[in-house]
Amino acid sequence: MADEEQRKKRRKEALTRLDSQAFVPSSKSVYADTNGVPRSGDPPRVLHLGLTDGEIANRVVVVGHHSRAELLSGFLSPEGPELFKLASDRGFLTYTGLFNGQRLSIVSIGMGLPMMDFFVREARAIVKGPMAIVRLGTCGCLQDWVKVGCVSVASAGSALAQRNYSHFDAPELHAGSEPYLISDLCLPDADLTSLVSSSLREALGAEKVVEGINITADSFYSSQGRADPAFEDENSALIEKVLQRYPKAITMASQHPPV
Amino acid sequence: MADEEQRKKRRKEALTRLDSQAFVPSSKSVYADTNGVPRSGDPPRVLHLGLTDGEIANRVVVVGHHSRAELLSGFLSPEGPELFKLASDRGFLTYTGLFNGQRLSIVSIGMGLPMMDFFVREARAIVKGPMAIVRLGTCGCLQDWVKVGCVSVASAGSALAQRNYSHFDAPELHAGSEPYLISDLCLPDADLTSLVSSSLREALGAEKVVEGINITADSFYSSQGRADPAFEDENSALIEKVLQRYPKAITMASQHPPV
Repeated sequence: MADEEQRKKRRKEALTRLDSQAFVPSSKSVYADTNGVPRSGDPPRVLHLGLTDGEIANRVVVVGHHSRAELLSGFLSPEGPELFKLASDRGFLTYTGLFNGQRLSIVSIGMGLPMMDFFVREARAIVKGPMAIVRLGTCGCLQDWVKVGCVSVASAGSALAQRNYSHFDAPELHAGSEPYLISDLCLPDADLTSLVSSSLREALGAEKVVEGINITADSFYSSQGRADPAFEDENSALIEKVLQRYPKAITMASQHPPV
Repeated sequence: MADEEQRKKRRKEALTRLDSQAFVPSSKSVYADTNGVPRSGDPPRVLHLGLTDGEIANRVVVVGHHSRAELLSGFLSPEGPELFKLASDRGFLTYTGLFNGQRLSIVSIGMGLPMMDFFVREARAIVKGPMAIVRLGTCGCLQDWVKVGCVSVASAGSALAQRNYSHFDAPELHAGSEPYLISDLCLPDADLTSLVSSSLREALGAEKVVEGINITADSFYSSQGRADPAFEDENSALIEKVLQRYPKAITMASQHPPV
C-alpha cells in the first residue's frame, strides 16, 4: 500500500523533527530576558516580529494583512541593493525602505489587539528615539452620511467595545452585568493625526476624508454586533448602545486605539 | 540614477495595483452575509480562514504558528493524492487529512483571543455536527514543582487575566480601579479533557502530565506580568493576585479558554 508507506514515512520524518526539537535546543529556543522583551540568536531578534535593532524605522505604517503590506511596499525605495523584507514565523511581515527620502517601515501585523500589542512593544524595544505609528485598514461604518470609499481618521479618539467574558462564563453570578463594556475615549497624538488628515485631504480631496471617533472592537464577530445563530452573543443592542454613548462614532473595527 | 528609476517603476506598479483594487472589485471584495459570517467566491469561502465546507474536519488540533502545524501535519495521511493544505491571506494555515483512520485538521491560528475567535466562529460555520477542538501550545509555568518538558492539561478550567483598558486610558477617572481583571473559571468539556489527559499519559508517561487551571492572558506582555520600562503596566503584583485567587493555577499563556 503506497498510502500506508507514505504515511509511515511522513510520521517518521515528523517524529525525527520532534525529537530533535525536544532534546537539542536550537538557538531559537534560548531567549534572553524572558521576563521583559525576549530575544534570541545573533544578532538578537525579538521573539514575535523576528527583527533586530535597525531593521524597523521610527516611522511605521501598520496594516492587517500581507498582501496590503506588499502592495504598499511598492512606494518604498530600497536602502541597499534590495528592499528590506522579513516575514516572521509568528505572522508578522516587515518592509523597511525610503519614502520621499525618509526611512519608513510598512508592517503587516494581522488582526486583533494582542497582535498590535506585540508590535508596539517589540518595535519600541528595538527602535531608538520617538516613533510615529499610523494604522491603515478597512472598517465598518456607523454613519449613513459617510460614503463607501472615504477614509476616516480617528482624530477625536478611539473607544473600546469589549466582550465581558465573565458575563458569559458564569451567567448565574453575572445576571445583572453588561455583556459588553464600552471604554472611555483614548486620544491619539494630535500633531500626528493633524498631519495624517491634511495629507489625506491633499492627496484624495477633502470630500473623501472624514474625522471623528473610531470604536475599536475586541472581536470581528460578537463585539462588532454580527449575529451568529450558533453562539449566544447578546449583541443585538450593542451598536445602539455604542451610538448612545458616542453619537459621533464613525467607524468600528477590530484594531487598536492609535498610539 | 538606477535607484530613482527603480523607485519610479515600483511606485508605478503599486499605483496600478491600487487603482485596479479600488475600481474593479474582485470576487474577493464581494461578500455574502457581512452581518453574519461573511463568505466570498465560488465555492464560498469564509473571510479569514479562507476555507469552504468540507475542508476542515470535526476534530481539530489548533496551534500557534505555522512551523508547528507543518511539523504535526507529518502525522496525517492524505485523503486524496496530496494532503489538504491552505494558507489564508489573513494568517491561518490549515491541514486536513486522516489520523488513525479518522478525519483530523491541524490549524495554525496565530496568537491572541481574537484569532481563536475567528477560528471558532468560522470553523463552526462550515462544519456540520459536533466539533472537538484541542489547543496545543507552549506556556509560562506558575508552579515550582512542574518541570520543564511536562504537558499541562487545563482540566480544572481556564480563567482570563485581562488588561482593564479604562484604568489606563483615563487615570483621573479610574484611580481606584484594578489595572487587571481576573475572570471566573471557564470549564472545558469534561469528556474531551479526560480523553486528552489519558492519551497523553499513555504516550508520554504519567510523570510528564500535570492537570489543573490555566490562566489565559489577553497579552503576552502586560497581562502575563512581564516588566518593560518603556510602558506603565502596573503589573508587578499581577501574578501574586492571580495565585491568591487561583492557588492551583499551573500555567499562563496568551490563548483562549478551551472550547
